[in-house]
Amino acid sequence: NKPPPCASKTKEDSISSISVPFIQKLIAEMVGTYFLIFAGCTSVAANLNYDKVVTLPGISIVWGLAVMVLVYSVGHISGAHFNPLSLLPLPPARDFPGNRMQEAWSTGALELICFEMFIWDYYRIYFVLQSVKVPAYIACQVTGSTLAAGTIRLIFTGKQDQFTGTLPAGSDMQSFVVEFIITFYLMFIISGVATDNRAIGELAGLAVGATVLLNVMFAGAISGASMNPARSLGPAIVSSQYKGLWIYIVSPILGAQAGAWVYNMIRYTDKPLREITMSASFLKNTGRA
Amino acid sequence: NKPPPCASKTKEDSISSISVPFIQKLIAEMVGTYFLIFAGCTSVAANLNYDKVVTLPGISIVWGLAVMVLVYSVGHISGAHFNPLSLLPLPPARDFPGNRMQEAWSTGALELICFEMFIWDYYRIYFVLQSVKVPAYIACQVTGSTLAAGTIRLIFTGKQDQFTGTLPAGSDMQSFVVEFIITFYLMFIISGVATDNRAIGELAGLAVGATVLLNVMFAGAISGASMNPARSLGPAIVSSQYKGLWIYIVSPILGAQAGAWVYNMIRYTDKPLREITMSASFLKNTGRA
Amino acid sequence: NKPPPCASKTKEDSISSISVPFIQKLIAEMVGTYFLIFAGCTSVAANLNYDKVVTLPGISIVWGLAVMVLVYSVGHISGAHFNPLSLLPLPPARDFPGNRMQEAWSTGALELICFEMFIWDYYRIYFVLQSVKVPAYIACQVTGSTLAAGTIRLIFTGKQDQFTGTLPAGSDMQSFVVEFIITFYLMFIISGVATDNRAIGELAGLAVGATVLLNVMFAGAISGASMNPARSLGPAIVSSQYKGLWIYIVSPILGAQAGAWVYNMIRYTDKPLREITMSASFLKNTGRA
Amino acid sequence: NKPPPCASKTKEDSISSISVPFIQKLIAEMVGTYFLIFAGCTSVAANLNYDKVVTLPGISIVWGLAVMVLVYSVGHISGAHFNPLSLLPLPPARDFPGNRMQEAWSTGALELICFEMFIWDYYRIYFVLQSVKVPAYIACQVTGSTLAAGTIRLIFTGKQDQFTGTLPAGSDMQSFVVEFIITFYLMFIISGVATDNRAIGELAGLAVGATVLLNVMFAGAISGASMNPARSLGPAIVSSQYKGLWIYIVSPILGAQAGAWVYNMIRYTDKPLREITMSASFLKNTGRA
Repeated sequence: NKPPPCASKTKEDSISSISVPFIQKLIAEMVGTYFLIFAGCTSVAANLNYDKVVTLPGISIVWGLAVMVLVYSVGHISGAHFNPLSLLPLPPARDFPGNRMQEAWSTGALELICFEMFIWDYYRIYFVLQSVKVPAYIACQVTGSTLAAGTIRLIFTGKQDQFTGTLPAGSDMQSFVVEFIITFYLMFIISGVATDNRAIGELAGLAVGATVLLNVMFAGAISGASMNPARSLGPAIVSSQYKGLWIYIVSPILGAQAGAWVYNMIRYTDKPLREITMSASFLKNTGRA
Repeated sequence: NKPPPCASKTKEDSISSISVPFIQKLIAEMVGTYFLIFAGCTSVAANLNYDKVVTLPGISIVWGLAVMVLVYSVGHISGAHFNPLSLLPLPPARDFPGNRMQEAWSTGALELICFEMFIWDYYRIYFVLQSVKVPAYIACQVTGSTLAAGTIRLIFTGKQDQFTGTLPAGSDMQSFVVEFIITFYLMFIISGVATDNRAIGELAGLAVGATVLLNVMFAGAISGASMNPARSLGPAIVSSQYKGLWIYIVSPILGAQAGAWVYNMIRYTDKPLREITMSASFLKNTGRA
Repeated sequence: NKPPPCASKTKEDSISSISVPFIQKLIAEMVGTYFLIFAGCTSVAANLNYDKVVTLPGISIVWGLAVMVLVYSVGHISGAHFNPLSLLPLPPARDFPGNRMQEAWSTGALELICFEMFIWDYYRIYFVLQSVKVPAYIACQVTGSTLAAGTIRLIFTGKQDQFTGTLPAGSDMQSFVVEFIITFYLMFIISGVATDNRAIGELAGLAVGATVLLNVMFAGAISGASMNPARSLGPAIVSSQYKGLWIYIVSPILGAQAGAWVYNMIRYTDKPLREITMSASFLKNTGRA
Repeated sequence: NKPPPCASKTKEDSISSISVPFIQKLIAEMVGTYFLIFAGCTSVAANLNYDKVVTLPGISIVWGLAVMVLVYSVGHISGAHFNPLSLLPLPPARDFPGNRMQEAWSTGALELICFEMFIWDYYRIYFVLQSVKVPAYIACQVTGSTLAAGTIRLIFTGKQDQFTGTLPAGSDMQSFVVEFIITFYLMFIISGVATDNRAIGELAGLAVGATVLLNVMFAGAISGASMNPARSLGPAIVSSQYKGLWIYIVSPILGAQAGAWVYNMIRYTDKPLREITMSASFLKNTGRA
């Protein structure tokens, strides 16, 4: 009598995704992204304007803690993404759990080819089902980021060195590689704390915030440590400075996919990854959309 | 037979609020505010007097951790406010839960107007009921802050650059906007961790302390990052330097109201906000007043 | 049939305190104090010898985290004191719980006088009962501290600026006041996290470590931020530099007593403080001595 | 009917250690070590190349948080070692629990001699049983470390000061002593949080990360604070700079053995240490190998 959970979920997904709670989610994403970008970019601007008083460790701490406190305060509402990358489809892990892992290793090449074909099917279905939700989320994130960069421009009016976006310090290739590795790292850690049952509740915010913090600390001087297309896009739009912007869009997308893919290979759990990472984000997502 | 919980709570509120445990709460607020202001402002004074050895990240860490450890040690006694703003009436959320949220969105303008009228009624009732408690709390907080600033003045006697209050680094408008945003942010996070059940116990202190830390880090060089009228008032009284003080009283009040209001819009829980945030503060408040 | 728990406890206390597990506790205290002092003082020495590369925030983080990790790793063995002050008798709270608090406030002066008389009786009994345990603990702590300072002296041999003890930066009175306040603060927080049930397990180490961290951050440049006679005594013995040492013994003792006393006034719990703070330290102390 | 758990474990250990989940463990160790070394060494390289903008506290935070987040994300897969030292045999604690501790203290010298003889027997058995697993783990760790150092060399191509390995700042003996003490400290803390039941889940990562952080902070300027032969070996291979490398292999091995040994002396628990530390690492290790 009960309909299969998957079908019911899909139906609910497509219908209720424009009901009122979904609007609450969009507000949460926009306000959250606004605060994240405002805090981080203001720390960069204050460091430029007030004689390097914030220091790079200070800027890193601002980015990391801003992620952490927003995960704790709006994670249960919208999933606390603030990043278009965490809305992209991940490898379809429901069909690739522990025992199938072993099959894949033993059967080798042929299996792998079939599997790859399935992936593209999965990606196609995903984009149809999520065609309302994902663009709305991403629009809210980019809007929040642009509003934050605009606010900072108004606050530091008249000073010329207030560009708070991300620019390669060295060659484009250097920044491309560094952005790839740190986004890989971030998505690897997010997948890890989302897989481990104990981490779901209280440690997810701490671990994800700490990863952002350490990534900004070691990569901030090299590439700006964006890890997030929305973070780079907002200040670029406000300052009309699009130099090297492609790096901060292409490289994080590839890094995030690779990180989730590699973690999926070493995952060892009975829970399907999709249930954990996609619908529940890394915090229990009690909403309906 | 059982009286309605609301009436019983109200009665108890007005009667027992001057009994002995309430005196304990006042002592906790005064001692806590003293320590918070003493630690934070001494770090500022030591940085001025000893060749910037503390650094801005160090000052931010002092403010953030001081809030955190005080929430853990006196949060269960007095609620660990230390800030007049968290005693102001918040939007009356008991009458605005999830389902009414949907009504408001669907019925639109008329409903909203009625709701606004109710708010003013709510504010009026609130101030009558709390007429004993709130002024006593605020008096204790300002006394604690002033005593702390006085102690620092005595410790650093004879040196002229020991003003540890908050002053706009740039224009008044710049500091007004920054104070508004960071107090909005702080109250938004407090509302968030108080709504989420998992956060009540152990994460509230961590999240609130981290928010103070990051706010001081990015806004400390711009506006001083007060977020708290008592924090600005104490050193101003001791040094008789009232320049720009109005910013640090008006802007945080508006920011705190706006932050609680916006979080209320995106809240999605069965618990009434007033029960969580007002009487229980952000830690379970087992006292009677 | 069951003997009264108090008598059994007292008997066990005096007899078994020299049995084998007590030796394990002494080793834990000595090794723990060695590591705490070695880490903290080496950070001071490295900062002096390598061009201030550690910085004051770095030194503060070392002290704070060293306390935290030692609480987590040997707290369940020896109580993780590392400080003679936390072995001194605290105000006898078993006879001063919530309801008696109210009596004291209502009956006023006469009650208070009787109570004060009782205190001295309590202190006298305490020292007789603990006459074996406390001196052994303190001896281990001072030995650990002295060995650590000696190791550092050997490591940095031949350089003259390696004094890692505590010296007043300004007047003796300034350091005396600052040491009093920060030790008051530390003992106030320890009493707080030990009273709150939720804090016993996992938050005690975090809160106590954070308090040490922030105290060193704001007071390190003024008085050295000792808060611990053993911390000052070890390097003083190794370097034979006893100038101002009395400050770091007298002031913390007074501050610790005052902090525990004030927290006792605002405490509101059913658990007797002595049970929590004295025998169980701030971590569950499953040993027998 | 049930076979003795010890025998079953041994058999399972030797047979299943090359099955598929073991390959997952090896991938986890290699990826984890890669990220740990990449993050830490890039922070060192960025500090050298960009005008000391990361600072020593920043580098310490990177190392500490990198350990913490990797423990939370792959600790339940592979144990999150990343360090050959934590794979070496520890003192055989299953045969040396609380009550035997008392015997050893009371019977004295003779018992101790027998015990020492048993240890060598234990070590021999250990290496036979683990002859597949341990070399594979260590190979993966050294490979991950070398790949990370190679990546950094490619990123910072053309600049000559990018050696990110560890070198003694002063004499070899100074670095040898400092490495011994900090590895002793690290293994002591790991043993401590693994013994305490409450710490197994959520605090292990925090405590171990904090220990690495503080060790790098105070010892980084003296010896480079390796604590891990794989961390020193990777950059040394890539840069072909083997000066003083023996210090970072011999001293941590001795320090780790001494730290586990001393903690074992003060341990007071009913759980056998081997069960906790060896098979379960410091996080519950649900795998089969």
